[in-house]
Amino acid sequence: MIVIQADDAQAHLDALAKPQRSMGRLELLAVRLATVQQRLDPITRPRRLVLFAGDHGVVAQGVSAWPSEVTGLMVATMASGRATSSALAAAHGCDVRLIDTGTIGTPLADPPPFYHHVAVAAGTSDLSTGPAMTAAEFDAGWEIGAGEARRAVEQGFAVLIAGEMGIGNTTPAACLTMLLAGASADEAVGRGAGVDDVTLARKRAIVAQAAARAQPLIATRPREAIAAVAGFEIAAMAGFFAEGARLKSTLLLDGYVATAAALAAERLVPGTAGQMIAAHCSAEPGHVHALARLGLDPLLDWGMRLGEGTGALVALPMLDSAAALLRGVAKLTDIGTASAG
Amino acid sequence: MIVIQADDAQAHLDALAKPQRSMGRLELLAVRLATVQQRLDPITRPRRLVLFAGDHGVVAQGVSAWPSEVTGLMVATMASGRATSSALAAAHGCDVRLIDTGTIGTPLADPPPFYHHVAVAAGTSDLSTGPAMTAAEFDAGWEIGAGEARRAVEQGFAVLIAGEMGIGNTTPAACLTMLLAGASADEAVGRGAGVDDVTLARKRAIVAQAAARAQPLIATRPREAIAAVAGFEIAAMAGFFAEGARLKSTLLLDGYVATAAALAAERLVPGTAGQMIAAHCSAEPGHVHALARLGLDPLLDWGMRLGEGTGALVALPMLDSAAALLRGVAKLTDIGTASAG
Repeated sequence: MIVIQADDAQAHLDALAKPQRSMGRLELLAVRLATVQQRLDPITRPRRLVLFAGDHGVVAQGVSAWPSEVTGLMVATMASGRATSSALAAAHGCDVRLIDTGTIGTPLADPPPFYHHVAVAAGTSDLSTGPAMTAAEFDAGWEIGAGEARRAVEQGFAVLIAGEMGIGNTTPAACLTMLLAGASADEAVGRGAGVDDVTLARKRAIVAQAAARAQPLIATRPREAIAAVAGFEIAAMAGFFAEGARLKSTLLLDGYVATAAALAAERLVPGTAGQMIAAHCSAEPGHVHALARLGLDPLLDWGMRLGEGTGALVALPMLDSAAALLRGVAKLTDIGTASAG
Repeated sequence: MIVIQADDAQAHLDALAKPQRSMGRLELLAVRLATVQQRLDPITRPRRLVLFAGDHGVVAQGVSAWPSEVTGLMVATMASGRATSSALAAAHGCDVRLIDTGTIGTPLADPPPFYHHVAVAAGTSDLSTGPAMTAAEFDAGWEIGAGEARRAVEQGFAVLIAGEMGIGNTTPAACLTMLLAGASADEAVGRGAGVDDVTLARKRAIVAQAAARAQPLIATRPREAIAAVAGFEIAAMAGFFAEGARLKSTLLLDGYVATAAALAAERLVPGTAGQMIAAHCSAEPGHVHALARLGLDPLLDWGMRLGEGTGALVALPMLDSAAALLRGVAKLTDIGTASAG
């Protein structure tokens, strides 16, 4: 049952000891946070980032500036607490978990307690030559993510972020953005972590073809269509979002790949996006289309394109500001200036 | 002596274990922070907000939606820790001091330790009928702020923010933006804390006239010209900025009124803006002109217009993110992917 509507939250803000609407965009965020949490005193701590890692068969086609081995190297860097996401999470007091949902490497030898290897398979199949995964594999990935959302909620985390690591994963993300947000190949395909013009053209052709092959299935067998162009970390994020939303969590949405997972979750479990706050619009050209389809207005437009949940981590303190505005400010009537309002 | 140039900081970022430039605007902020602090491992804690309060004789002309008495009520709210700035400062671990530089009220009866009443006078004179203050009064205000900057630096604060409270103070801010940033009256005068169309027209006429009267003095007697259209809290912020910059502090710049003070500081002590990071561009139309004159690129454009340092407090964690990026991320060479770069 919805008790707190946007108007209620705005009325609360309008009664505070400040000129009405004077905090601009922060007030819209505060309204969103209050309605997502169904409380006028929202909380933003503790918060958790769950990083999902996976590899992609399509990398064999040369769609990325980096080889698949880099996924494992970056997972090891995250495990050692020295990735960009690690540094930002530490700066903003965000707990981190790291889940290998299907990289090509072996599990870490001496892993930290926050690392878990629950791989669906050693990388997806090449989506340019056939389905990236079976529907059963998609479900397995989804369930890994859903389990992480349940765990986080049970452990009392107030804000949930999904991040990803997977060399080549802007290629499946672009396929999903075409399939689920109606973007063209030109709109959906960008340079990812930095491909050159030749690679970009190749990537665009592969994405267009794979999305076209999945398209006929989307109306009748959407799970299968999505699985055909997804990644294990994307399936996991989709399950994480859908289950997190079902449990009424606050979901802070990261960049292009996470948003592709959000499109999948919203398609399979409509209403999921209602629990989301979009952290930022990335440098990937398709992101703006995906966010628009989800009805989300991003907080930042800073040209970030790293993934790993980093954009969400940069935006995370804005939720703290919004919560502070709702919780910590005196009412105008309490300071004796009601007549001046 | 400048040791760390922007190129050095960018080279440091380019060597980290992430795609080059993939953190977008955050990397530009990191470069700025590194060059301002002259270190590749910048620090952002502890940090302090100094709030300067003052009243304005020109309020008698009806330039504000609020009476001058509200300044004192808001100072009391800040002293009780329940202003918007209080809530945001608490959320982001920012120390606060509150300095009455010249309100019309009496000092607080039972003040907290962070409140100090060192008023230059009980409000400025009406700038629409003559100079707002004498040059000696301007110097007294300036010295209050400079002393606060020295104190903060001596106490080890790494980031300094100046905030203000003063009903009517977008009127002197608009005069200064005309005088020092070359803005027209239409560009410089906005609705402040929420004036109606009739009041806006009156405010615009008053600002244009006062700025025109000060204009002939600006080349030869700039201190006097600035004093004629300033406020005590603006003079204090200008002194705070100039002294903070001299001491090589990191100055995080708030909104329109703080930026008017920054224009004054830069005019009187050239180079002051070199230690500044602009937090945001406010809803006041003149702010963009003032920031451009100072050569500053704001982090946020969220239509905030509250003052009190609140815009700077919302942006403050972005400095934490930038510092974390510089300090906490592994180098690419450390994870064995140098050849993949």
